[in-house]
Amino acid sequence: MKQPIRVGILGLGRIGKMHAANILTMKEFEVVCGADPFLTEETEREMQELGIPKCTKDPEDVFADPTIDAVIICSITETHSDFIIRAAKAGKDIFCEKPIDHDVGRILDALRAVKQADVILQVGFMHRFDRHHSALQHKIADGTIGDIEVLKITSRDPAPPSMDYIRSSGGIYVDFMIHDFDMARFLTGSEVTEVFATGTSVCDPEIAACGDVGSGHAVLRFANGAIGILETSRRSSFGHDQRIEALGSKGCVMNDNEYENNVRFFTQDGFHGAKVPYHFPERYKDAYFVELRDFAQAVREHTAPPVTGFDGLQAVLIAEAAARSAKSGKLEAVETIEV
Amino acid sequence: MKQPIRVGILGLGRIGKMHAANILTMKEFEVVCGADPFLTEETEREMQELGIPKCTKDPEDVFADPTIDAVIICSITETHSDFIIRAAKAGKDIFCEKPIDHDVGRILDALRAVKQADVILQVGFMHRFDRHHSALQHKIADGTIGDIEVLKITSRDPAPPSMDYIRSSGGIYVDFMIHDFDMARFLTGSEVTEVFATGTSVCDPEIAACGDVGSGHAVLRFANGAIGILETSRRSSFGHDQRIEALGSKGCVMNDNEYENNVRFFTQDGFHGAKVPYHFPERYKDAYFVELRDFAQAVREHTAPPVTGFDGLQAVLIAEAAARSAKSGKLEAVETIEV
Amino acid sequence: MKQPIRVGILGLGRIGKMHAANILTMKEFEVVCGADPFLTEETEREMQELGIPKCTKDPEDVFADPTIDAVIICSITETHSDFIIRAAKAGKDIFCEKPIDHDVGRILDALRAVKQADVILQVGFMHRFDRHHSALQHKIADGTIGDIEVLKITSRDPAPPSMDYIRSSGGIYVDFMIHDFDMARFLTGSEVTEVFATGTSVCDPEIAACGDVGSGHAVLRFANGAIGILETSRRSSFGHDQRIEALGSKGCVMNDNEYENNVRFFTQDGFHGAKVPYHFPERYKDAYFVELRDFAQAVREHTAPPVTGFDGLQAVLIAEAAARSAKSGKLEAVETIEV
Amino acid sequence: MKQPIRVGILGLGRIGKMHAANILTMKEFEVVCGADPFLTEETEREMQELGIPKCTKDPEDVFADPTIDAVIICSITETHSDFIIRAAKAGKDIFCEKPIDHDVGRILDALRAVKQADVILQVGFMHRFDRHHSALQHKIADGTIGDIEVLKITSRDPAPPSMDYIRSSGGIYVDFMIHDFDMARFLTGSEVTEVFATGTSVCDPEIAACGDVGSGHAVLRFANGAIGILETSRRSSFGHDQRIEALGSKGCVMNDNEYENNVRFFTQDGFHGAKVPYHFPERYKDAYFVELRDFAQAVREHTAPPVTGFDGLQAVLIAEAAARSAKSGKLEAVETIEV
Repeated sequence: MKQPIRVGILGLGRIGKMHAANILTMKEFEVVCGADPFLTEETEREMQELGIPKCTKDPEDVFADPTIDAVIICSITETHSDFIIRAAKAGKDIFCEKPIDHDVGRILDALRAVKQADVILQVGFMHRFDRHHSALQHKIADGTIGDIEVLKITSRDPAPPSMDYIRSSGGIYVDFMIHDFDMARFLTGSEVTEVFATGTSVCDPEIAACGDVGSGHAVLRFANGAIGILETSRRSSFGHDQRIEALGSKGCVMNDNEYENNVRFFTQDGFHGAKVPYHFPERYKDAYFVELRDFAQAVREHTAPPVTGFDGLQAVLIAEAAARSAKSGKLEAVETIEV
Repeated sequence: MKQPIRVGILGLGRIGKMHAANILTMKEFEVVCGADPFLTEETEREMQELGIPKCTKDPEDVFADPTIDAVIICSITETHSDFIIRAAKAGKDIFCEKPIDHDVGRILDALRAVKQADVILQVGFMHRFDRHHSALQHKIADGTIGDIEVLKITSRDPAPPSMDYIRSSGGIYVDFMIHDFDMARFLTGSEVTEVFATGTSVCDPEIAACGDVGSGHAVLRFANGAIGILETSRRSSFGHDQRIEALGSKGCVMNDNEYENNVRFFTQDGFHGAKVPYHFPERYKDAYFVELRDFAQAVREHTAPPVTGFDGLQAVLIAEAAARSAKSGKLEAVETIEV
Repeated sequence: MKQPIRVGILGLGRIGKMHAANILTMKEFEVVCGADPFLTEETEREMQELGIPKCTKDPEDVFADPTIDAVIICSITETHSDFIIRAAKAGKDIFCEKPIDHDVGRILDALRAVKQADVILQVGFMHRFDRHHSALQHKIADGTIGDIEVLKITSRDPAPPSMDYIRSSGGIYVDFMIHDFDMARFLTGSEVTEVFATGTSVCDPEIAACGDVGSGHAVLRFANGAIGILETSRRSSFGHDQRIEALGSKGCVMNDNEYENNVRFFTQDGFHGAKVPYHFPERYKDAYFVELRDFAQAVREHTAPPVTGFDGLQAVLIAEAAARSAKSGKLEAVETIEV
Repeated sequence: MKQPIRVGILGLGRIGKMHAANILTMKEFEVVCGADPFLTEETEREMQELGIPKCTKDPEDVFADPTIDAVIICSITETHSDFIIRAAKAGKDIFCEKPIDHDVGRILDALRAVKQADVILQVGFMHRFDRHHSALQHKIADGTIGDIEVLKITSRDPAPPSMDYIRSSGGIYVDFMIHDFDMARFLTGSEVTEVFATGTSVCDPEIAACGDVGSGHAVLRFANGAIGILETSRRSSFGHDQRIEALGSKGCVMNDNEYENNVRFFTQDGFHGAKVPYHFPERYKDAYFVELRDFAQAVREHTAPPVTGFDGLQAVLIAEAAARSAKSGKLEAVETIEV
């Protein structure tokens, strides 16, 4: 059996804790240390109980530890680029939560550092690893539907996050729809050239008061001629609504949500079926494992990870064009940057 | 355009009225006369409004009318054999509601009269003409599922009929399951050799008081080695539950009920879908037309109808074996009779 | 029984023949005459066989016949306004195929003539009468989903029409998407204020050569704050794809296509289900009857029809804004006109 | 955190290896030792790689080890009763694969030993722990469907096991349908009083040559008046077909199989969906964990396990009655034994 990859986890908030718990059950990894500047005694105890041997407030403890092979960056977005650069300089492979950064300049600095150090950088777009989405992607990639003409993504959260979160999120396009922008590229295998975006806060007027929208909609034009239609909302109330559809020259492929079970109950009023998963931790439960398993493989074989830094950059560039379009009311071109 | 087939309708109860209303919209037929010994003024007026030019209490008015080509027998079961014989002697083609008769001897007399007069006799097993069942039958007949091994039929009424009806029905096997016995032969393309049947009245104890059961279950053995499993109930509460499933050497084919529409509504409690048709008049609405269209064709071309008198006899013989088995608690052989 | 409404059918092309065949089976109507300037002997014979007593090349034969109560306008779009005006002046109620006209000025003239003559004008948006769409509309209108936030319509034809048709169609927005623009207003119960539209001809480059697009996509803003997302294509290859989805504050409602039957066949490769109806004549078969039944009722009771001339005008105004947007790449306001 | 339960695994064949692999990832357990009289060097190495510290050919090494809290019995059926008795005498809690034994006398000896030693005995009917079946059971148990009237179970394996396996299996009723007999009791919450069973080997004539049948069918009568209809086959070819349906006074509840994903692909030939899990290790993957988690809880709290020795006995008694019925062609009473 191969030696496990020794990792440090940067950021022990909600998503960091989830990754920590997952990684601790994976034989591919050994968690050496968790670092969080806001580390509380409670979190430290929680991490110990989970089985993480050491916690620290200083991320440098991770970068400086020569026994650590890789870092999992789950800290706030503002720290991502800096941590990527420091990890790269320390020769560590990197798994970084999305988005890489809100600032394209800083993303480019980070990607250059990764390139120079020749380390692995994988971005945390876990939607790609969902079995329903992945099966659909295969039907497109293997030519089953012929040439893709239209891609439609429905992506809705059950309920809006706190207004504090909304205010510091960077806006719906870069915070939320970035997953869908990434999926759009992944599924079509083509780059987005133009975007029209618009939104509304009819689902929650408080969001408008924060200067953001609660529902974001985008029409994408791809280099291969296909059209993408994305529809997202912060509030779908019935659960985490995650569906994709692709129309091609030979037919149409679509996936449905997952359901908690396949039971149906029939009465004189019709029939009743099960719930869909409430939110992303339930729906993408398995996908969070699969992305890390693939990261482990990329680290071990020193090969390109399934989601690269370039992918992370493109999603941000599309999000920026979408934000511009939402203001201008016009189709906006997506910036092209050589990395 | 061909001349319409001139028909007389015998029996103007619920099923007779339905056939009358259907036939009046079909260009294949012209209704000449309706006959019912219990004809009321109200029914007569109703028939006139529908567009039937003449009603009579005396069936002989139908048999004696040389301009009438064919009869539709919808009267009570006790009269079927007699009417078939009289129609045959008058040289008229015959569509007869199921069952032909409760008495095998009388059925044989009727079949002989039909044979001697060389007229068409079609029995009203309308399940065969339902688009879902028919599509399933094709998948079996064309070899899609390979050799059939197991046939399962679920057949449930939403609510029991009146106890008066139950008392004079001849029992669940001949009154209700006869449709399913016919479908079993139709779908497997093989004869039933043995039957085990049992029942219960847990759905309505009053039915037990009438000497019948409210739910009938049968295991059939077919000449081709397949097994049939039939499950029926007088009370399914949620609607007319009509589903079929066939397992073959190459796969399994199953159909679902129809639904009033394909809308689903999603909330935090799960999703809700539409009702199934409440009872046979709604579910088999189209099938009632198709069987008569096929009857018209058989009459015009003087060819074998899709459901023959022999089919009508076999279903009764299986029902009789089932009734015997329900009493004996044993597998019972189905009688074989040369016609 | 009430006297049937005596109708003249104007235009005996594909759609006119279909309406003629339907109307001849409806007891609400009696077809007096069919008129078509391009009437051939073959069509005349066909109509006679169907049961239409008289055909003419001169529409005036219809307008001038005082025994005719109503007209069914199925002629080419260019003639609609003129026929509406002539019918209105003759005091006849009017059922007119969509669109009323490509020219807003002429539509207004027609609507004024209708108003002045106080006759009924119903426009042939048959999508409204489909049982799946209608059931979904009820879920919105009765408050089941709460306040509507997003409406999504998928509307795809199996294969493009002839390029001759495309060239004279007025473009995808007014010819094809007009159905969806009407449905958008019908389903949300709100007017469209702004439109963004774009299209592509990746499905058939010949369409681009005709100066049109093969796939049209539109984002709508409604007066009530909701967003509409319409996706259409001239070529979906697998059949007539007609699905609607609405997200509201209390949940989400969506309908699926119809299927030819509910049979599924299972093998080691997965399962296989039935086809969807190939094109609109199959999918909207029943809807074509329902709209005329409702028209008959409006005529008899002299009440507002379910689809008014105002509805017909609005759909064209939205289509015009969409066509402008497709050129400008910007959100375009929908014109507001007092009638 | 509680101390893990220290277990020894008896039998390291296919099912033993699967349990071993599962248990090693569960924090509730610590695997101390694996014992198998047929232990090969290969299996020993495999177990070491999995993480089991010690393997032995002598089961006594397990029973005699005072640090072992519980045993997991996965050895051949003939050894079950003996191992249960020895484990009970050694004061160890017991998880035993189904069936407890083919011989009722030996089962009774085992149950008495368990009772006397006051240890936990749980039988491995994992179907109960499947999320689809479990959700359906809740709908029955909580009164959603009212009083249960009919229970239907479809249970099919994709392909027959080896003829060697068939020959030593004890026959389809005790080897295969025992799962369904257990589910029947579990779902109805009632005891089976009578059984009619029949079978056929049309799916594989070789099975008939082994003196067994490839498809077993049973009609059950329950003490509460309900009827059970079980249909099983050794060969369904399309995967592990596991569906349940219950009709009650207030409606009907049914579950469908699982599918590998929810993607559907539409073409002109209809639509295509995903596979069902091929066999029980895939379908009941999660259920195998859940049953052990529940066992751990029963061990820790020394409370009744979710599947008791009594449950194990009843399933065998029903299987015996079914085997008798298949020979006699009659309804057979299920033996009642006081434990």
